Amino acid sequence: MTTTDTRPTRTEQYDDEPPVELVCSADTLSTTLEAVGSVVSECRLRLAPDGLGISAIGPATVAAASVELEPAAFDTYRSDGRTLGIDLSRIDDALSVAPRGPIRLWLDPDGRLRLAAEGLEYAIGLLDPDSIREPPDLEAFSMDGAAVHTEGETVGSAIRAAGTLADHLTLGVTDDPALVAAADGDTDEMSLTVPESDLEGLERPPTEPSRSTFSLSYLEAIHRVLPDEAVRLRLGDDEPLELAFDLADGAGRARLVVCPRIRRG
Amino acid sequence: MTTTDTRPTRTEQYDDEPPVELVCSADTLSTTLEAVGSVVSECRLRLAPDGLGISAIGPATVAAASVELEPAAFDTYRSDGRTLGIDLSRIDDALSVAPRGPIRLWLDPDGRLRLAAEGLEYAIGLLDPDSIREPPDLEAFSMDGAAVHTEGETVGSAIRAAGTLADHLTLGVTDDPALVAAADGDTDEMSLTVPESDLEGLERPPTEPSRSTFSLSYLEAIHRVLPDEAVRLRLGDDEPLELAFDLADGAGRARLVVCPRIRRG
Amino acid sequence: MTTTDTRPTRTEQYDDEPPVELVCSADTLSTTLEAVGSVVSECRLRLAPDGLGISAIGPATVAAASVELEPAAFDTYRSDGRTLGIDLSRIDDALSVAPRGPIRLWLDPDGRLRLAAEGLEYAIGLLDPDSIREPPDLEAFSMDGAAVHTEGETVGSAIRAAGTLADHLTLGVTDDPALVAAADGDTDEMSLTVPESDLEGLERPPTEPSRSTFSLSYLEAIHRVLPDEAVRLRLGDDEPLELAFDLADGAGRARLVVCPRIRRG
Repeated sequence: MTTTDTRPTRTEQYDDEPPVELVCSADTLSTTLEAVGSVVSECRLRLAPDGLGISAIGPATVAAASVELEPAAFDTYRSDGRTLGIDLSRIDDALSVAPRGPIRLWLDPDGRLRLAAEGLEYAIGLLDPDSIREPPDLEAFSMDGAAVHTEGETVGSAIRAAGTLADHLTLGVTDDPALVAAADGDTDEMSLTVPESDLEGLERPPTEPSRSTFSLSYLEAIHRVLPDEAVRLRLGDDEPLELAFDLADGAGRARLVVCPRIRRG
Repeated sequence: MTTTDTRPTRTEQYDDEPPVELVCSADTLSTTLEAVGSVVSECRLRLAPDGLGISAIGPATVAAASVELEPAAFDTYRSDGRTLGIDLSRIDDALSVAPRGPIRLWLDPDGRLRLAAEGLEYAIGLLDPDSIREPPDLEAFSMDGAAVHTEGETVGSAIRAAGTLADHLTLGVTDDPALVAAADGDTDEMSLTVPESDLEGLERPPTEPSRSTFSLSYLEAIHRVLPDEAVRLRLGDDEPLELAFDLADGAGRARLVVCPRIRRG
Repeated sequence: MTTTDTRPTRTEQYDDEPPVELVCSADTLSTTLEAVGSVVSECRLRLAPDGLGISAIGPATVAAASVELEPAAFDTYRSDGRTLGIDLSRIDDALSVAPRGPIRLWLDPDGRLRLAAEGLEYAIGLLDPDSIREPPDLEAFSMDGAAVHTEGETVGSAIRAAGTLADHLTLGVTDDPALVAAADGDTDEMSLTVPESDLEGLERPPTEPSRSTFSLSYLEAIHRVLPDEAVRLRLGDDEPLELAFDLADGAGRARLVVCPRIRRG
């Protein structure tokens, strides 16, 4: 599929039903796309028969995102399996104006994405998916470290506190307290420690305590899309950080990965 | 009347009552002046015995406003019939600080407008009304098109949605849906359609479907002063758009007119 | 004490208890420091055995602040009597992220101030107190005028109203109304008058009516830290203005002083 420049007349119709048609809540759609938008501004939207999927990697190859929504996340999910290239800000603009109820998305005969909610309808030009950077296999990032189940708000506090004095945040899993976030500024330092009893879950690897240091600019972008509630972290020793959380009441999942910025000593 | 430069002493008093004296709610005054302020920054305030009136036309002669408040909109309304020249931002500044209760306005012996609310009092210099552009006769704008009764929020949604992708908005009345708003961007389009059953009233002219295209910058200024509730539109074919709504619980009326920007084809 | 550059390891501990240790509510700490922050960005924090005290004078010697908190304002108050040099914005940053509950402050072995709330901990570098301008003796400012007890919101209204048209505000105590605030702009004027019956207290000096004129830029900075409720003013004739209010439910007191800008005639 390539980008279409032809302006459709609004009366054009398919003879039969469109090749792609989705209906879901405005909230599910915006939460899903915002998760990806914390890392990239354009992405490939895979509309496989068994669900929607996006994998994206940021321009500096430091942060990546992957989201999946099962057909159960939708009121209607029908697709012939194609992949669309989308500019996230175009859909975000439409959602910012749309009413909060159900959203209908479909592909029109001119190859544009239609988004409708009540009487409001947008026709959004698509991008050539081949012009968008190849999505990574997120499984390729080694994730052998500890798994920590906590609240998004805990991670968010650490990121905000670090942001008042530093450019980097170190996250680690130690004996006790279990989760440690720390940042060093020119003259000041901060740390946030969470004892194991305050975590919702913890699986330690059979190894030494581990820690990795990340650039705050990536974490701050991710912070804006973290839910307040349950977030699952995977943390290794100088390994990428994975933050995963549920979408659409469990019918979807977002995974955000940030590579460490090694700065030990 | 001319602008006065003399600084009054605050103790100056009329021997008898001031030639102009009005008392109304802060809300009525600010809503009325904001409606005019969507089009101009200075205006002539006509204080006729049968009520307050303002007619104003914007500098580019694209947008115009007219408001009327009957004496019933005021707790006190007394005037010898004069016309004042006012800088809307001066009164807006005073109202932004004033408490929300009743506001008293009167002309002081130095020819300044006094605005008082509880212990707060402003003395506001007036402009020479002759220096302010002659107000138009809004009746001169041809208004033969359809009359549509809808909610201000519906018009507001169309303006906000169009603003995400275009500089112009086309409004039209067609067979079904009855009211159509549409905008074209470089690659994207939006439309908002309202079926006749969702309108609060519709009078079609005995003619063809009609539509006109307006510059969004004028509509966005007007959008800020539209009430959420009942708004009456008059819409023709390449004709000015009129938006009218009640002020002061029906004891007043605002009419805003925007000329079309013809761009057919 | 001098500023320390050495970076501590987080495991360093005193053999016994730290020489300074305070516990109070986040609210008490932030209200106290914001009062001082309306005048300066750095200050000397006196931790005497009988309570915390700060005296500060702004760079142009126009505005000064003094705050005191008795040990009763704290859950824990222990000090060997030293004076610390603090950068207010560093503590403000930490408080902006800290949870709203109790805050613990103590001096660590490296000479840094530690601030902890739940699992969050900051280590904040201190300044050499000798490098901070000598605090004035606020008692040296003559305060012989009238004493006015009113609401912070009344003073705030006068400052906001004056700010819409002028750079200065004149405050005075007259016969009736008792308290007068007035400002003159290029063409406009404002006044706020409060009758004696609306004041919570008034002690007139046995002299003529008095008034003084102040630069609004100083008053606006102070306005941001005034409580809505009870404020005590001292006002003379071309004398400094004092605004005093309670901190920590009466276990502390803030005094802000602004020198007049004489501009009579």
